[in-house]
Amino acid sequence: MVIIGGVAAGPKVAARLRRLSIEAEITIIEKGKLVSYGSCGLPFYVGNSVPEIEDLLKTTAGLIRDPQFFKDQKGVNILTETEAIAIDRRHKNVRLRDLTTGEERELDYDYLVLATGATEVVPSLPGIEAKNVYTLHHPEDAVKIRSLIREKKVKHATVIGAGLIGIETADAILSRQTKVALCESQASVLPKLLDPDIAILLESRMRARGVDLHLGSPVKALEKDDDDNVNRVVLENGEVETELVVIAVGVRPEVSLARQAGLTIGVTGAIQVNQHLQTDDPYIFAGGDCAEQIQHVTGGKAYVPLASTANKQGRVIADNIAGRKTEFPPICGTSVLQAFDLNIGRTGLGELEAKQLGYDVMTSLSTGLDATHYYPVHDSVTIKLVAEASTGHLLGAQVCGQGECIKRLDILATILHFRGKVSDISSLDLGYAPPFATAIDVLIHAANTFENKQLGLVKTITPSELLEQVRQGKHFHLVDVRENEEVKATPFTGPKVQEIPLGELRNRYQEIPKAGVVISVCQLGIRSYEAACFLKEKDYKDVRFLEGGMSTWEALRYQLLEYIVE
Amino acid sequence: MVIIGGVAAGPKVAARLRRLSIEAEITIIEKGKLVSYGSCGLPFYVGNSVPEIEDLLKTTAGLIRDPQFFKDQKGVNILTETEAIAIDRRHKNVRLRDLTTGEERELDYDYLVLATGATEVVPSLPGIEAKNVYTLHHPEDAVKIRSLIREKKVKHATVIGAGLIGIETADAILSRQTKVALCESQASVLPKLLDPDIAILLESRMRARGVDLHLGSPVKALEKDDDDNVNRVVLENGEVETELVVIAVGVRPEVSLARQAGLTIGVTGAIQVNQHLQTDDPYIFAGGDCAEQIQHVTGGKAYVPLASTANKQGRVIADNIAGRKTEFPPICGTSVLQAFDLNIGRTGLGELEAKQLGYDVMTSLSTGLDATHYYPVHDSVTIKLVAEASTGHLLGAQVCGQGECIKRLDILATILHFRGKVSDISSLDLGYAPPFATAIDVLIHAANTFENKQLGLVKTITPSELLEQVRQGKHFHLVDVRENEEVKATPFTGPKVQEIPLGELRNRYQEIPKAGVVISVCQLGIRSYEAACFLKEKDYKDVRFLEGGMSTWEALRYQLLEYIVE
Repeated sequence: MVIIGGVAAGPKVAARLRRLSIEAEITIIEKGKLVSYGSCGLPFYVGNSVPEIEDLLKTTAGLIRDPQFFKDQKGVNILTETEAIAIDRRHKNVRLRDLTTGEERELDYDYLVLATGATEVVPSLPGIEAKNVYTLHHPEDAVKIRSLIREKKVKHATVIGAGLIGIETADAILSRQTKVALCESQASVLPKLLDPDIAILLESRMRARGVDLHLGSPVKALEKDDDDNVNRVVLENGEVETELVVIAVGVRPEVSLARQAGLTIGVTGAIQVNQHLQTDDPYIFAGGDCAEQIQHVTGGKAYVPLASTANKQGRVIADNIAGRKTEFPPICGTSVLQAFDLNIGRTGLGELEAKQLGYDVMTSLSTGLDATHYYPVHDSVTIKLVAEASTGHLLGAQVCGQGECIKRLDILATILHFRGKVSDISSLDLGYAPPFATAIDVLIHAANTFENKQLGLVKTITPSELLEQVRQGKHFHLVDVRENEEVKATPFTGPKVQEIPLGELRNRYQEIPKAGVVISVCQLGIRSYEAACFLKEKDYKDVRFLEGGMSTWEALRYQLLEYIVE
Repeated sequence: MVIIGGVAAGPKVAARLRRLSIEAEITIIEKGKLVSYGSCGLPFYVGNSVPEIEDLLKTTAGLIRDPQFFKDQKGVNILTETEAIAIDRRHKNVRLRDLTTGEERELDYDYLVLATGATEVVPSLPGIEAKNVYTLHHPEDAVKIRSLIREKKVKHATVIGAGLIGIETADAILSRQTKVALCESQASVLPKLLDPDIAILLESRMRARGVDLHLGSPVKALEKDDDDNVNRVVLENGEVETELVVIAVGVRPEVSLARQAGLTIGVTGAIQVNQHLQTDDPYIFAGGDCAEQIQHVTGGKAYVPLASTANKQGRVIADNIAGRKTEFPPICGTSVLQAFDLNIGRTGLGELEAKQLGYDVMTSLSTGLDATHYYPVHDSVTIKLVAEASTGHLLGAQVCGQGECIKRLDILATILHFRGKVSDISSLDLGYAPPFATAIDVLIHAANTFENKQLGLVKTITPSELLEQVRQGKHFHLVDVRENEEVKATPFTGPKVQEIPLGELRNRYQEIPKAGVVISVCQLGIRSYEAACFLKEKDYKDVRFLEGGMSTWEALRYQLLEYIVE
């Protein structure tokens, strides 16, 4: 068995195969110096929460995963600094080049595994080749970035690209007391992950922490000083002074070897494989960041490169080589991150993506606590559900908040796995005790909100819809039904915001003008829901509550302020 | 609408009903002084992590949920210190007694809701009526216990009953620097929740923290001093000095009013209801701790009183009264708690319960980390899966550990909801990033372990089986494949334990005697699995690895020590 690639999927194939077959001769070919490292930990190393780069190479027991480790523990040979330069499918061998000596040789295989990973995309910008421009893809990159920040005492850094790695890197750099500018050509952060109305939660947090956020403004050039270092990033709208640039615009699957060998490359640009992760050639498997997947919700092809997927695929490949017909299941595309003390993620389809695919979409956005409010530790969780309006089938979900969001997202990924409906969520018997949930879990609350909306019990307005109203110059009347103390703590006042605590609404509702759109707002979206129910019955024709409560309202503050005080 | 009971289900019915119908006249009858309190928070108040008892009465916005609050915010009438003493179904009225004045009167209803809750069970023991014997069911109980501990500087307290409340209470009292004895008639803690092989994890933690644990030893009597205070608890085996006794042997549904009204009481002893939570009388609904449920896995009747269930049921009752035919779904019986810094829980059936019900059961026990080991915060999670051996259908699961166990349990409850298999678990696309999971989530690792066992790839021994071997005087050979540093850190040595780090096994395996049972052990159960695979291929006829690794081994230390060093 020959495995090309020694980072995630490759070593996993080797380890599983060894357990299934003690006699197999297993060789891993790796271009780099290091193998089997935790590449997802690189931003954490930059941010210093992982102290040493070696920590990313260690097993739980503290052993360094180097070729000797694989030899001793697994009986697996690893050739590092060795490149596979060609595959001869007819003779079943791989041509190798030793990158230190330049020597070439051939290695025969019975089965070949392509785990060639992905390559970071580097845009062709003027100045991109400057000395202080980095990507964050290999341990070596992380070491360089961290030591540069420490040694040169970098005061201003720029991250280009607000995808997952870009956001994590911006957070890591900021935690080293270096100011960060983040530039993204799209109009919101994490554009592939989050719909804009969830993305604003992260954006407002980043702005509050001092990140210089440039959205919807593509980078035009990197200007260099005489020393061949970039000192200015020129954007379509504006420019940023900088001492360090990190490029994080994404990765593309590394498929050159597969292409050269005549294997089919799929529509996503990654290697096409069947459910057993076999390529066109039954003796060649592919897995990890170089292979494409099936999206569970749509049944279409997908490319979501993740270490978790790579590990699962490694297991499936080993099983199939060992004669067990295991299948790699379709993915939901679940992606998560922790940055700026927020836990953020998505599974399945986003609202915009679902609409583009022609689904009849209904959404709900709701906020709640991850534990009872009287328990000392509790934080907020915002959940957006995306479902088919007609059937209630869940299509996807997004979460964001300081609380235990990923717990809820994983449950939603499980719902998607079973092609469940929003009504399945409200039927779940989830664990309740004060440290773990509120008596009605925030996830079940999200499903209830969706169903109330679906049944027409109450009308709502989403943050995006509200912004749209403002942009279109429409008029609406805001009623803040929070208690006076809460309003004092996080004020949001102006001539167009009326403050009537819910407890006084029954006596004071006549103060609210009956004409036009009335929007009720509160902390979590529960009291504003009650207020909307009440006002609706009192013949207010168009009354809505703001989905997501103050967490979204706070995030909208910047965009809404002008409207409210005008 | 008249609702009898003002703690959990009752107020929820009222709140939801108000949102569905602004005109309905809603009255809640409550025997006690307080309504709508977080009774699950009582142990946290005793342990001081909830500072004031009023905190359990407050809304998230900080308002006290008293009758005035319900009047103002919801338009709901509450009569406290008022007992419903009889129901006249023919005339559709309830006879009420004002507990302060003794006055009686009748109140008509269109629909009646029984949310009478549960009563704490007080065993008929000699001495039970003494002054310093308490239950922990009402806020008043918690206030008395906490002030007694503080004012009398209680040094030794005894909790009778190691169920959920008993364990939480023991933890709370211990956190106040009071020594605690915990007495349980059954042989392990949380006997209704956990199988003994998971319970030992909690037991060993409790012993390590200094809890005086008396298992399998029923209380025979409480001995009193001249001042009518219990000073000694007499057990079947032994006795305990004490200054305070908390009785936590369980609750029973409060059904006397329902029984008097001629409504059917189910086999569980709780009020029988249909899927709409209607009793025999279509105008009378029942929900919360007084009503029985359907167990989702078995389809049989169940009684699992929980605040989360009560809240969901309140919603369903309100819907049905308002003419929406909502159903309350079967429950998985998910129960969770946090105590002694462990997160513990169960969903579905336990192994013993499943076997008693005639299922062909297979289990797996595995331990892993809840986040990558290089991420600064990570803790262990132990998962026991209980499934049908023939089909792989999940029947239930138990979790215990300092890590994010309940997250995994909630996913398992979701799997149960869909009647999924263990193979569904390994197919899940769960969120992976270093702070949230390992690249192969501990839950997926648990499923993989189960499947490896199911396929006969390797033999295992469970902690219970190992103890059984010891009890039966069987001989086995233990091989510790951890690194020397790990063994030094948590040694577990004796003549019958051979230390061969996994990396040396390929060269040294001949040192292991070939005859008899060989059991490999390591930290998490992964290296011992690899060792078992290797030794099996090297013609060791009966080689097994210990499921759950060191976490279970540590827990077994006490019971195993004699065998190992003999």
